[in-house]
Parts: sequence; C-alpha cells; structure tokens
Amino acid sequence: MLNYILKNENAIYYECGYSCDNVIFINFSDESFFITDARYKIDAQLNVKSSKVIISNDLIKSLIKIIKKAKIKKILFDPFDFDVSSFNKLKSNIKTQLIPKKNFSKSKRIIKTNDEIELLKKASQLGRYGFESFSFFIKNNGLNYSEKELQFKAKEFMSQTGKYDLSFDPIVAFNENSAKPHAFASDVKLENNDLILVDAGIKYQRYCSDRTCVTTLNNNINFTRTQQFSQKKQQKIYDIVLKAQQKAITKVKVGIKASKIDKIARDVIEKSGYGKYFVHSTGHGVGLDIHEYPNISSRSDVIIEENMVFTIEPGIYLPNKFGIRIEDTVAIQNGQAIIL
Amino acid sequence: MLNYILKNENAIYYECGYSCDNVIFINFSDESFFITDARYKIDAQLNVKSSKVIISNDLIKSLIKIIKKAKIKKILFDPFDFDVSSFNKLKSNIKTQLIPKKNFSKSKRIIKTNDEIELLKKASQLGRYGFESFSFFIKNNGLNYSEKELQFKAKEFMSQTGKYDLSFDPIVAFNENSAKPHAFASDVKLENNDLILVDAGIKYQRYCSDRTCVTTLNNNINFTRTQQFSQKKQQKIYDIVLKAQQKAITKVKVGIKASKIDKIARDVIEKSGYGKYFVHSTGHGVGLDIHEYPNISSRSDVIIEENMVFTIEPGIYLPNKFGIRIEDTVAIQNGQAIIL
Repeated sequence: MLNYILKNENAIYYECGYSCDNVIFINFSDESFFITDARYKIDAQLNVKSSKVIISNDLIKSLIKIIKKAKIKKILFDPFDFDVSSFNKLKSNIKTQLIPKKNFSKSKRIIKTNDEIELLKKASQLGRYGFESFSFFIKNNGLNYSEKELQFKAKEFMSQTGKYDLSFDPIVAFNENSAKPHAFASDVKLENNDLILVDAGIKYQRYCSDRTCVTTLNNNINFTRTQQFSQKKQQKIYDIVLKAQQKAITKVKVGIKASKIDKIARDVIEKSGYGKYFVHSTGHGVGLDIHEYPNISSRSDVIIEENMVFTIEPGIYLPNKFGIRIEDTVAIQNGQAIIL
Repeated sequence: MLNYILKNENAIYYECGYSCDNVIFINFSDESFFITDARYKIDAQLNVKSSKVIISNDLIKSLIKIIKKAKIKKILFDPFDFDVSSFNKLKSNIKTQLIPKKNFSKSKRIIKTNDEIELLKKASQLGRYGFESFSFFIKNNGLNYSEKELQFKAKEFMSQTGKYDLSFDPIVAFNENSAKPHAFASDVKLENNDLILVDAGIKYQRYCSDRTCVTTLNNNINFTRTQQFSQKKQQKIYDIVLKAQQKAITKVKVGIKASKIDKIARDVIEKSGYGKYFVHSTGHGVGLDIHEYPNISSRSDVIIEENMVFTIEPGIYLPNKFGIRIEDTVAIQNGQAIIL
C-alpha cells in the first residue's frame, strides 16, 4: 500500500492516462481520485482510467475532504510540486502526516514500459523528420534569415505546422551564439559558411524527443552526423565531440554506472585538451518530461537498466567563438543503447 | 522600510529592470540583491539596476547568507512563489520571521506608470497589426486549414515570425469549439462561413497585449468589430456581446467599482436572456503578466483609478453551437477607458 498526492501534470498523466493544467491526484489503499475543475469535466470523465473524477472549484478543499473521510494517517507528497500557499492550507486542515519525497514520480518513471519506448521511438522519428525538412528550408531560404526567424521556422517544421507540440522552445544559434549552451535567438542574420546549432524536439502522445545537430550553411547542408566545416577549428572540435558522443553510446550497457558514461565522454574531450569547455553533464532521462531520470553525470549513482531512455550530449563551448553539442536520445534495448 | 523576497520572474523584472528564469530577489533597508546562476552573469551585471548581483550555484543558500548577515527580523514573501522544498530549506536555516503576503508584487503593480502605459500601448498596436496580417492570410489561404494549422499561423503572424514573444498560446477556434472559453485547437478544417474566434497577444519589452475577435470566413473577413455572419443566431449573439462590451467600456471611469463594470456588461447579456451563458468574469488586469490586477469581476472590491490597465471581455458560450467573446485591453487615461 502506498499513499501519495501528486500535483504535476505529467506525473498524473502517468498514473491515469489523462491530465490537465489544474488537477490534484490522490492515491491510497485501493482508491484514487482525480480532482479538477469544471473546464475539464467532459474530457476527464472520458479519459481518466481507474480513478474517480471529482469536479471542484477548490481543489485543495476537495482533497482535504477525501483525506479526512478516508482517515489517512500518512501520505507522501513531492515538495517541488506544491506551492507554500496550497500546502499550508492542506496541512493546517488535516492531521495526516505529510511525508516529503522529492521527485517521487520521476523516480517511479525511470524505467520505461515497452509501450512507452514505442511512443518515444515514434517521437524521435517525427523529430528527425522535422530536422530533415528544416534543413531543406534552410538550404533554399535560410540565407539572411535571423536566428529569431529561423527559430520560428524550426518550430514550424518540427511541429509540422502545429500538428505536434514541441518538447521545448528550440535553440537555433549561429557561430558565437552557439557557444552558450542555452542561447537565446538574436536578430543576427545567417551568412554562408556560418555554423548553425539546432537543439529541438517534439511530443508524440505527450512523450518527448530531444536531439541536437550542428551544421553549416552551404549547398550540402543537412542534419546528419557527417559534417564538413570550412573552418578547420570547427571541424576539429566537431570531430572531437562526435567521437566522445559515439564512444559513450557504444560503451553503454546494462549494469554500467551513469557516472561512468559521463566519464567516457568526458575523457575523450579532456584528452583532446578541451575538458574545461565541456561545462555540463553528458545527458538526462527523457519521457513525459524533457528532463527525467537518470541523470548522466559524474554525481549520479544510478546503474543503467534495460528500458531506460536518456540523452547522450557532450559539448565543447569556446566562448565568443562557437560551440558544438551533439545529442541523441537512446533507449536501452537488449542490454545496449540504441539511438531512437 | 519594507523587507521582501521575490522569486517570480516578472515581479523581479519590475524591481530592477532585468530578470531570468532562475533568480531570487531580496530587498531590505536600503539594499537589494539579485541572486542568480552563472548562465546569467553577464546579462545580469549589465542590466540589473540599483541591486547587487550575486552569482551562486545554490540560490537559497546565498539568500540565507544575506539574511543572516543583515540580521533581518521580519520579511515578506509570496507563498504562491515558493515551492515547499525551497521554502523549508530557507525557513529551517534562519530565525527571521517569514510573513506570507499573497500576490504581493501584483498588488504593487496594479497602477501602471506612464512609461508602462506606453509599452502596453505599443504591445497592443503590434498585436492589432498581427491580427490584421493574420486576417489577410486566412482570407487568401485559410480554407481547409485545420484549427491546429491556423493556430500555428496565428503564432507566426502575431509574433512577426518570431520577432516578438507571445503573451500566451493563441486560441483559434471554429464553430462549436469556440463555445469552450479555453478551447484546444483540433484537426477540424475551416469551411466557408465558419465562425472563427481568435484570442491572442504579443509582448513588447515584456509587456503584454491581449485581444479577442470573432469573425467568419468570407471575402470580407477581418478582425474589426463590424461583422456580418451568414447565420442569424450568430449575428444576434455577436451584437449582444458587442453591445455589452462597448457599454462597459463607455461607462468605465475613475472611481467606479470593478464589480460595477462587471455588472454593466453582465446586465446587457442577462436582459437579452443569455446570462447563464456568460460563464466567466468581465476582465483582468494586464501588464508584465497576462493576468494581473484588477480583476473585473462581481467579487472584486477594487475601485478603478487612473493608469490601471485591464481587459473588457464579455462572452456568450452556447454549448455545442458556438461562442462569442469580444475583448479589448483598456487603460484609464484622463478618468476614462481608452482602448489600447
């Protein structure tokens, strides 16, 4: 028996197959309740699985009522989910012991079901298709487009003009702007032989894709891993990052530590003399949220298991010059990492 | 002297002219601090006004240090801003009395400065331009576009292909979908004489515009207030809502209660026999946030003052048929409401 309260949209979707932006979910003994407001009544009643739907204009009040009626003694909650105002209202009205459990739902979701892997695979396929059509657009029209304009076009091609939601606002960065891992698009215009970094993904049935490619504007522009830069330094750095990424992917297997994967990628970059320019961890889990478990970082103590899904995305960022990040989302299948 | 902690991005922008998505702001006596992480170092140091910028990889820890050093006895915070996890960490490490003050910053921002009014005016002008260019697009290309596709095109035209941020994800709803005040776009395709509701806005220097128009697909399609529907019932409901909206705008003056404005609009609709289909309040404040104070609702006790900015947006929603909402953002200037 596990009692818990959830307030996060994706965490709740995972429990009952439906969610919305104003909902509280409670599970205890053999019962669970999906508490939302009147706007979502029809959709919730139609789609929520194996939980009772409660329509309320005061979600916390309804939650208190359920907790009191069921005389629940202890219940877990995620202290990242609750704002202080809602939580204090809840706490001051019940005698139940509220036990904080950080990232409770994300921990549950670290190993994907086969069905989830299929959805993530489909999301990645659609994401790759988006990258490909975006590359044709840039080839034919990209010259003199600003970063902001091309970022908007990335949204258009990735989403297939609104058909799919985006995993996150895409990053489109030229030249020195790509040296910022989280660059904001500017009004700078694209010129021939400019370096272009694109980090983007879409959602298929709520499951996210995530991929980063670096290329350059010429007649052969494409978002595959084979790239030819006119600047030698860019080519050198690209080749190092690609080697780090591919080595890490090849070495992933069931039983390896996540921190070891980070080390494999980092070692390649450090041995090339650019260790201090790899300023973030090697990857993150992907699922309903774009950032899930496992973290692929030096501080992670996770051991990789079958059906985990995460990114491998080493990078080298040379301030005021350019940055290269190469990212794929992989799933552990038959003990090894396959690129989705 | 007023001591307070802020954690909301727009609330902090209001204090010091810069903000980002990972920041805590503290003000006490004559000092204030902007605590953020290394990603925002350069931009923060360049743009934050009259506050000291602190770069930290643990914002709460840095906040605790400042509070302890300054020996602050009491300090306000907004319980909607803090998650339980951050708040508990803060609380358990200081002896300072933390006083909850809901919507503390929004209350401060209820009356706009003249400079803010200018920015909101500019945002509305750009928003109106977006609506106009979107109407040309629909006229020439809209037939057979799905709601999802047109919603995407709304983003393109409103944002001028990514040049401006959007105030919120635009609502584009045809026919019966417009009967839902917060409709999600579907795959249904646009046909001639369909009713089209568009609710959209853009941000100019972080200040939001907000406007809703209803029109129909024919050769004269436009987003002005003069509309001719082929269906008589649609025309009738449109005319009632427009009358309610225009009467409310005309009657707004300094000194009137916000609840009275709501009543003026509601009375027109109730007298026409559609009172129960006007399912939300008449308006909301607009500024850095798309929803600010004052609320224009029956439960509001605010009295309207010079330089307040808010929407007037009555609506009638006939389930499974169609909905009409007409919305403008107004500013109180020289005692009266002018449409921005």
